[in-house]
Amino acid sequence: MPRYKMVVEYDGTPYVGWQRQENGHSVQAAVEAAILSLTSETVVIRGAGRTDSGVHALGQVIHADLSREWAPFKLRNALNAHLMMASEKVSIIDINRVSDDFDARFSALRRHYLYRIISRRAPLAIEAKRAWWVSKDLDHEAMHAAAQMLVGHHDFTTFRSAHCQAASPIRTLDRLDVTRQGELIEIRASAQSFLHNQIRSFAGTLKLAGEGKMSPQDVRAALEARSRAACGPVAPPEGLYFMQVDYPDQPG
Amino acid sequence: MPRYKMVVEYDGTPYVGWQRQENGHSVQAAVEAAILSLTSETVVIRGAGRTDSGVHALGQVIHADLSREWAPFKLRNALNAHLMMASEKVSIIDINRVSDDFDARFSALRRHYLYRIISRRAPLAIEAKRAWWVSKDLDHEAMHAAAQMLVGHHDFTTFRSAHCQAASPIRTLDRLDVTRQGELIEIRASAQSFLHNQIRSFAGTLKLAGEGKMSPQDVRAALEARSRAACGPVAPPEGLYFMQVDYPDQPG
Repeated sequence: MPRYKMVVEYDGTPYVGWQRQENGHSVQAAVEAAILSLTSETVVIRGAGRTDSGVHALGQVIHADLSREWAPFKLRNALNAHLMMASEKVSIIDINRVSDDFDARFSALRRHYLYRIISRRAPLAIEAKRAWWVSKDLDHEAMHAAAQMLVGHHDFTTFRSAHCQAASPIRTLDRLDVTRQGELIEIRASAQSFLHNQIRSFAGTLKLAGEGKMSPQDVRAALEARSRAACGPVAPPEGLYFMQVDYPDQPG
Repeated sequence: MPRYKMVVEYDGTPYVGWQRQENGHSVQAAVEAAILSLTSETVVIRGAGRTDSGVHALGQVIHADLSREWAPFKLRNALNAHLMMASEKVSIIDINRVSDDFDARFSALRRHYLYRIISRRAPLAIEAKRAWWVSKDLDHEAMHAAAQMLVGHHDFTTFRSAHCQAASPIRTLDRLDVTRQGELIEIRASAQSFLHNQIRSFAGTLKLAGEGKMSPQDVRAALEARSRAACGPVAPPEGLYFMQVDYPDQPG
């Protein structure tokens, strides 16, 4: 059966998260329903990463095996038509035919996330549910300095949800950059893989650094404590965006 | 009574528009309700511009007369707390005490609007209701060239809603620039004042120019026709943002 790689964008606000769950409508279920509606095939798709309820994606990647050959652009347009008919807040940005050994989750070389904070006195109207509103002033340079304490190969137990199912808390964080444009503070994180709530735990801790409540040394000590109790409050989901996944070059 | 100037941001999606109307909830009513809730005063506020249902604002400006003196930042925080309690998608960005001869509408020297188009094959998920989705390729340089035909002092009957209540269709358009960053095409319009639907009429016509269906000369001819029939389809409200209003310098 031909395998298709799809890049998927979604507004995570109305969903229980990426993964199909008993307790509500998921992005995975929305895409699977569109495939069923189009092809009459019950397909289980696999995503490169699980995102929690309220977390957005500009570049989630999935793979799906369909029984027939499709011109990729026709498949994309047809699936989008079904998604729109169902009023889903999900859009298939791109589709490519890939070889059978491509796996959206296991072939991934690197995942890229963005966490958006808007720091200003007034609550968010246009950007509500699209960023974390922080009413305090934040020093983004202090945040960036603290973030550099976390880059590298570490035991990230401090920054991992109690519900995390990964076998090991050890990961290699390739990048954690904090930049600012006016009111908008952006945290960009890259790694081969992340633990559950890792980036939101980083964002909550870096916010404390931005307020002057934690020094870079404090953040380093929190990492070395290997204890959930050392983590700042986990930042809310609405600031987090799954941006991109890198794979080895795929023959078309 | 002390007069306050307020800069207001809103997501226009859930509202019937800026102005109080019989047929639904308006942004004006939301702000007036917050003032009533805070001060027990029934105040009628005036906005610098009326926006239609679905049109957003980052910088609508209003004035309101209250019976007592407030520290502006306390008034802003208190009004925002009431707006949030009422689940309004409205935020007061800034408040200043102004003199009695300041009028949000009549003192305005220049109004600035932004119209956002996202040109790509896939429907919008994250940016749904925040931009006009155009699935065709658009030549933004052709759009900019056509836009320059509209700048200046003209009879804009072609680009005016049939419901426009202005006494004269003559306006001076100071700026109509079209720029592009990736998929995002931005149209920036500035004038002392605009006619009803003028910018959405421009956007709809410039989209035809971007598709190669109208040349700059065609747009010029449409302007000179002074006929609503010569206008392209009016662009949808979700792409339009009321950005800023300029006033003469106000003593604090």
